[in-house]
Amino acid sequence: MASSLLQHIQYPSDLRKLSAEQLPQLAKELREFIIDIVSVKEGHLGASLGVTELTIALHYVFNTPEDLLVWDVGHQAYGHKILTGRKDIFDTNRQLGGISGFPKRSESEYDTFGTGHSSTSISAALGMAIAWQLKGDPDKAHIAVIGDASIASGMAFEGLNHAGVTDANLLVILNDNAIGIDPSVGALKNYLTDVKEGRNPRDNNMIKSLNFDYSGPIDGHDLPTLLKELERQKTLRGPRFLHIITTKGKGLKQAEEDQVKYHAPGKFDRLTGEILAIAEEGLPPKYQDVFGLTIVELAEKNNKIIGITPAMPSGSSMKFMMEAFPERAVDVGIAEQHAVTLAAGMATQGMIVYCNIYSTFLQRAYDQVIHDVALQNLPVIFCLDRAGLVGEDGATHHGVFDLAYLNCIPNLIIYAPLNEVALRNILYTAQLGLEHPIAIRYPRGRGESTDWQKPFEKIEIGKAHQLKGGSKVAILSTGTIGNNVIKALAQTENAGLFSHYDFGFVKPLDETLLHTIFTTYEKLITIEDGAISGGFGSSIATFAAKHHYSKEIRMLGVPDTFVEHGTIKQLQHYCGIDVNSLQDIFSGY
Amino acid sequence: MASSLLQHIQYPSDLRKLSAEQLPQLAKELREFIIDIVSVKEGHLGASLGVTELTIALHYVFNTPEDLLVWDVGHQAYGHKILTGRKDIFDTNRQLGGISGFPKRSESEYDTFGTGHSSTSISAALGMAIAWQLKGDPDKAHIAVIGDASIASGMAFEGLNHAGVTDANLLVILNDNAIGIDPSVGALKNYLTDVKEGRNPRDNNMIKSLNFDYSGPIDGHDLPTLLKELERQKTLRGPRFLHIITTKGKGLKQAEEDQVKYHAPGKFDRLTGEILAIAEEGLPPKYQDVFGLTIVELAEKNNKIIGITPAMPSGSSMKFMMEAFPERAVDVGIAEQHAVTLAAGMATQGMIVYCNIYSTFLQRAYDQVIHDVALQNLPVIFCLDRAGLVGEDGATHHGVFDLAYLNCIPNLIIYAPLNEVALRNILYTAQLGLEHPIAIRYPRGRGESTDWQKPFEKIEIGKAHQLKGGSKVAILSTGTIGNNVIKALAQTENAGLFSHYDFGFVKPLDETLLHTIFTTYEKLITIEDGAISGGFGSSIATFAAKHHYSKEIRMLGVPDTFVEHGTIKQLQHYCGIDVNSLQDIFSGY
Repeated sequence: MASSLLQHIQYPSDLRKLSAEQLPQLAKELREFIIDIVSVKEGHLGASLGVTELTIALHYVFNTPEDLLVWDVGHQAYGHKILTGRKDIFDTNRQLGGISGFPKRSESEYDTFGTGHSSTSISAALGMAIAWQLKGDPDKAHIAVIGDASIASGMAFEGLNHAGVTDANLLVILNDNAIGIDPSVGALKNYLTDVKEGRNPRDNNMIKSLNFDYSGPIDGHDLPTLLKELERQKTLRGPRFLHIITTKGKGLKQAEEDQVKYHAPGKFDRLTGEILAIAEEGLPPKYQDVFGLTIVELAEKNNKIIGITPAMPSGSSMKFMMEAFPERAVDVGIAEQHAVTLAAGMATQGMIVYCNIYSTFLQRAYDQVIHDVALQNLPVIFCLDRAGLVGEDGATHHGVFDLAYLNCIPNLIIYAPLNEVALRNILYTAQLGLEHPIAIRYPRGRGESTDWQKPFEKIEIGKAHQLKGGSKVAILSTGTIGNNVIKALAQTENAGLFSHYDFGFVKPLDETLLHTIFTTYEKLITIEDGAISGGFGSSIATFAAKHHYSKEIRMLGVPDTFVEHGTIKQLQHYCGIDVNSLQDIFSGY
Repeated sequence: MASSLLQHIQYPSDLRKLSAEQLPQLAKELREFIIDIVSVKEGHLGASLGVTELTIALHYVFNTPEDLLVWDVGHQAYGHKILTGRKDIFDTNRQLGGISGFPKRSESEYDTFGTGHSSTSISAALGMAIAWQLKGDPDKAHIAVIGDASIASGMAFEGLNHAGVTDANLLVILNDNAIGIDPSVGALKNYLTDVKEGRNPRDNNMIKSLNFDYSGPIDGHDLPTLLKELERQKTLRGPRFLHIITTKGKGLKQAEEDQVKYHAPGKFDRLTGEILAIAEEGLPPKYQDVFGLTIVELAEKNNKIIGITPAMPSGSSMKFMMEAFPERAVDVGIAEQHAVTLAAGMATQGMIVYCNIYSTFLQRAYDQVIHDVALQNLPVIFCLDRAGLVGEDGATHHGVFDLAYLNCIPNLIIYAPLNEVALRNILYTAQLGLEHPIAIRYPRGRGESTDWQKPFEKIEIGKAHQLKGGSKVAILSTGTIGNNVIKALAQTENAGLFSHYDFGFVKPLDETLLHTIFTTYEKLITIEDGAISGGFGSSIATFAAKHHYSKEIRMLGVPDTFVEHGTIKQLQHYCGIDVNSLQDIFSGY
């Protein structure tokens, strides 16, 4: 009974056969369906629960996929996926070979634009709308659904600023729930809150200043109101902006009450909502916590230390610093460009800034790293969390390009710690007075040992280390993937053939040691958790060419393709850098 | 007599000895000084003429360099340089070994933040202001001067959005002249014009919505008004926004009347203002014009073609397309991120989009190239003008990292034409239906021949070509630097030793030909007008390592350092890739 409506819906065409009066019941069923599956299979929960009514209303009122709907970020698109042909495979969400956790063009014609990173929806939908003006169908609807955290990012502003001077048939729907992954921040957020709470005159708001036809705010959980407003919007043309108010996690009490935790809660009890606790005792620390706890420890003794996170206080564990030293740690919102140049500005005045950005999101601030930090040789400390293969978030989120795109930047030091002790020590070393900026990359997930909070030791910049001696083949690894090498060698019969070197520093390379290695061993293997092209392996190959070494170099890492979603272990296997693959490779020597 | 005030001023401390009544006379002298030198030595003119009064007023009222002043972009900082210790060397502006055309920290303590790219000033100044709050001097002034074109860029919005929720002592001065290099565009620009012209109520403007204390608009050429307002601002705290109205080119009639041309007019008559015409007849075309004229030619026959430029209609010659097909070409303003994702959105609907962005500015849209275009394998055509060493604009503007940062992106084709005919043909080929996105990089300056408008020929993707045969050494060049190789070989006695191959495609590499080359020749030389690290040379070295070729590879290109300003020829010499250097190198074989 409970799923009597949803069970008959495969596509929006089925949905449109329902009466408007049936839609609240459908919303209830859709929520339950999402909760049932996400509670077991894991994934992003709160965002999709928050837009359940909006999702139904959009597909009910508009003629998708002819009308083009773009979901910003895409965390909130589970309901959309379920209503657009993927209900029966929704339980494969985020799994290897299954559907993606984000909208994806190759997956469905209803997914008009692939997302994952934020704030792209307005630009993409505007591009579509302009295309259809030129193609002679100016009545086709183009809708961007964007959250209040995403719209505060500069790129979204650029899209609005352009759209406002076009007559494109573009509807921007602001899904305002006052939270991204963490609570939203910034002046625009405060302004939007004032609008919601009636403290701003609605006849002269910011959005109208950008020449949008502004409507709202309306209750995004009230289906009759939503339907009426969307029907009205359907009759309008030109750039319009609809402000709706929703509650992230709507319909699951705990998810509404603890919106940060229920963004992606892991497994939970579908009836009570309780998160199924994972025993953390005895586990090595998460790398993010090694960062978060260590920066606090350092900041206690060094009052020049500042922490910056663009909208990831929880994900990066910068929250520890924000709690301990609220005036010395800041969440700037989804604003990676600003975060980096803000750090540069602080560094000009002698501050020691830890700017913590996920590897994949530093791509958003690439120019600022070059132009504002490295060119001026300001000793900003970039902490690149989620470097390497990140697992279930998939192709949009893997931090696999960083070594390649940072390698070409003069003045920059690049370091990938082998383990949590090395991460802790480089964080310590970085605040002792570096003469250059440094990028420290470390992965999602946990380290190797619970015994990591040892006394600090200074790391010598540019120095690589032998971890194991051997007779014939030198294995050069950078970063935590070196632990796979250690494990693979431990179970390899011919391990005596192999020396293993930890090249924490991808830049500057330990050239002295490299000369020794090239003159000592017959063959080399390089291993990195990142794109080989332009990365560590390429650097070693370039070094070899430059110095006319002619040894065989086998380069292992991420091939020149976008790697999809799956567990980190599965994806490492795909790339041939998991323990078993390495063991196979080593055994072949 | 005319320079009686300026001649006694070396530093702002000298300026502050003048009476307020003397400042208009000083403004006159400062303008004349700028005109005298720029008319002969070339450089950026209009922007500095526009802020002459503001420059004087800022240094007169505020206690620079203790108070911290950040100039956005920096085109407008000539007056600032002249008044801060660099008057006597201002005639070395933009020349090799001379002062930079932009603010530069290593040049003067008055240059608090190096600029060149736009929209960084608010973030940088806010970083400084927060640093001084922590360091216990919340009264130190921090001033960002930003133009109306720059403030429309997303990064500036991110800075405002953050600053508005701080109590940092930050004054943002909007220098509103309604033009960047080309006229400003966008909804914000229209809004600002409404404010200027009194059509917006000033008590509830956009800037106030971001929690800034808004003042203005005031006349930025009226020194008494400026002084009074800046004195008042000096007494205020927290984030403030002062809107001043100026005229770009102020004080030189022609520069006021043709603001685009007089942005950087080249040599001109200091008295009449007339630009000294360079005989263009008989010269090969500028690469930018090859792009601009060819896209129009193609668009005449292919109605799916669209052109996008972020604020460079003149510089990229997209203006030809904008004139010929106004509905199919758009200047989106300084919004590279938006430009790329807009192009992606259009491409999803089957449009063929030429997104023309200077190489150095594509750094601003790196994530969008990866996440929105390449990951979705959308066949957007990126045209990267000003690739390689750009000359006098210097370190902030060289387009030398593109090969390295694009090389690691899956799905992307990278092509660097040897000459204008190859550029023309790849532009033609790209609209025949590519299965992948492509980045076409070409340099500032002119091509090789006036006879370039030949019938179109399709270029085979991934194919390299032998330009010259030889016995011992294979020279592999990519892009227009190959012409230096041709010229150097023409004057090298032992030219018979050398084969020369044009690798237009840096990706995909012509691996078939590479195998032939590696098995045929004793030695290889790679040459590129870009960073060797991660670039073309590294790709060849990586190929060699992968296939166990042990030939000597000499990699020529831009070393791992930031290259300063000078003529392109001088900078090529510095990098060892000018004709003479190449000849010397070749002669040594």
